[in-house]
Amino acid sequence: MRFAEKLANCVKKNNSLLCIGLDPEIEKIPPFLQEVENPLFAFNKEIIDKTHDLVCVYKPNSAFYEAHGVLGIKQLQMTCEYINSTYPDIPVIVDAKRGDIGNSNEGYARYAFDYLQADAVTVNPYLGIEALSVYFNRADKGIIIIVHSSNPGAKEFQELSIDTTPLYEIVAKDIAGQYGNNPDCMIVMGATYPQQLGQVRRIVGDMTILIPGIGTQGGSIEDTIRISLNSQKQGIMVNASRSIIFAGSDQNFAEKARNAAENLRVNINVFRV
Amino acid sequence: MRFAEKLANCVKKNNSLLCIGLDPEIEKIPPFLQEVENPLFAFNKEIIDKTHDLVCVYKPNSAFYEAHGVLGIKQLQMTCEYINSTYPDIPVIVDAKRGDIGNSNEGYARYAFDYLQADAVTVNPYLGIEALSVYFNRADKGIIIIVHSSNPGAKEFQELSIDTTPLYEIVAKDIAGQYGNNPDCMIVMGATYPQQLGQVRRIVGDMTILIPGIGTQGGSIEDTIRISLNSQKQGIMVNASRSIIFAGSDQNFAEKARNAAENLRVNINVFRV
Repeated sequence: MRFAEKLANCVKKNNSLLCIGLDPEIEKIPPFLQEVENPLFAFNKEIIDKTHDLVCVYKPNSAFYEAHGVLGIKQLQMTCEYINSTYPDIPVIVDAKRGDIGNSNEGYARYAFDYLQADAVTVNPYLGIEALSVYFNRADKGIIIIVHSSNPGAKEFQELSIDTTPLYEIVAKDIAGQYGNNPDCMIVMGATYPQQLGQVRRIVGDMTILIPGIGTQGGSIEDTIRISLNSQKQGIMVNASRSIIFAGSDQNFAEKARNAAENLRVNINVFRV
Repeated sequence: MRFAEKLANCVKKNNSLLCIGLDPEIEKIPPFLQEVENPLFAFNKEIIDKTHDLVCVYKPNSAFYEAHGVLGIKQLQMTCEYINSTYPDIPVIVDAKRGDIGNSNEGYARYAFDYLQADAVTVNPYLGIEALSVYFNRADKGIIIIVHSSNPGAKEFQELSIDTTPLYEIVAKDIAGQYGNNPDCMIVMGATYPQQLGQVRRIVGDMTILIPGIGTQGGSIEDTIRISLNSQKQGIMVNASRSIIFAGSDQNFAEKARNAAENLRVNINVFRV
């Protein structure tokens, strides 16, 4: 099943636009889990088991696993495999923000889609849309391109004006022009820049937008949702990572994560009507 | 020892500006090596043993190892460890082209510098120089930022004009302005765009430039060297990957790689006088 269809089904089934970022940090997971074998996986498994009916997608960020070398990357693979086997209706985005020339991108596509068996991967546009073609050659896989990131320094290059049009809008237009009819092609827009998010929604029509920056990073839920929904009152995946997975820090951490996830799921839905 | 110093010493010792890209593909390595344990590492080891006196730096691209999951990444780690232990005077760049927001970049920095024990890493500027600060917090490590890539589609965004100044020049100016006095900060410029390379040399002064795109990608050696040398007749690392490591395809592949590397090392030096 193609990524877009799997995502749409999960949005409907769980009545959710919530994406949980599975970004475990060994120093932040509950102490009783830090000593077990494969602690990152053990932590994720608890979070997943307690939130699987609340999300439309999970999004582990590869950086948090790579930090531990092959021991960490193995646990990323175990996490993806666990979701695929136990909750096969829930799609998985590997947040890797990769971007290289063609033959190198082929290696990254194999990492995300063949080794990790993810449904989608995030990529960087700086080398041009042409360089991303090897990702698009993968039938049914989701390709999610950064347009405007959520970090404080995002404006430095992304908002430079080309004949009065900021770079991020040109990136959005190029993507929509080339892949706007491919539902598996999506984009990333940070919630911390709501005006820019609204502008890009007008540019890309009903394309699906992955939105980080809510929660710890401080983006407003109401502003974000009202501005970013597409004409079907959906078309967004609202990501939260730290504010959910680290909501608790002891034995009941997964229950606290569930409460945080459920609150956010409902708060998002309030503004969908 | 800081990356810049290690690199300068190796340039001098081997009289070389040649960077060999260790980008093994299982389908392209000699058949007799495809069946051994850790074939990518075994291939790299032969190449390294035959070329260690001809290079100023080695540059494995993480993508070619990630393609094989943890089995591949383990061999990338073994390759870095082999160079560090056997040829400790030769620096290693992990070509990973990473780029995320701050706390995610911390994970990538750990991957490159703590797990792989590399001397330097390549990064992507799209999220702004601010997002790269966690890399610069690593004392003595090299941070090599993509300015203009070598691929056919590089122009799409990198050459958009902001008040008549193309984006890649603004990126180069921002890097030189913020980190031009840090010798461990370097940039990437593709040899396939020689005019742009010359323009950036004028912008960044004597900063060191990593130059891919010679060899299989077709950049001219003479044009590239004449245009890119700094005022000290150095300040460049000229990368070649496929044209060297796949110069041969049977038992004598490493000897053929050595011949290709030696030819390129000499051809580069011809234009340094």
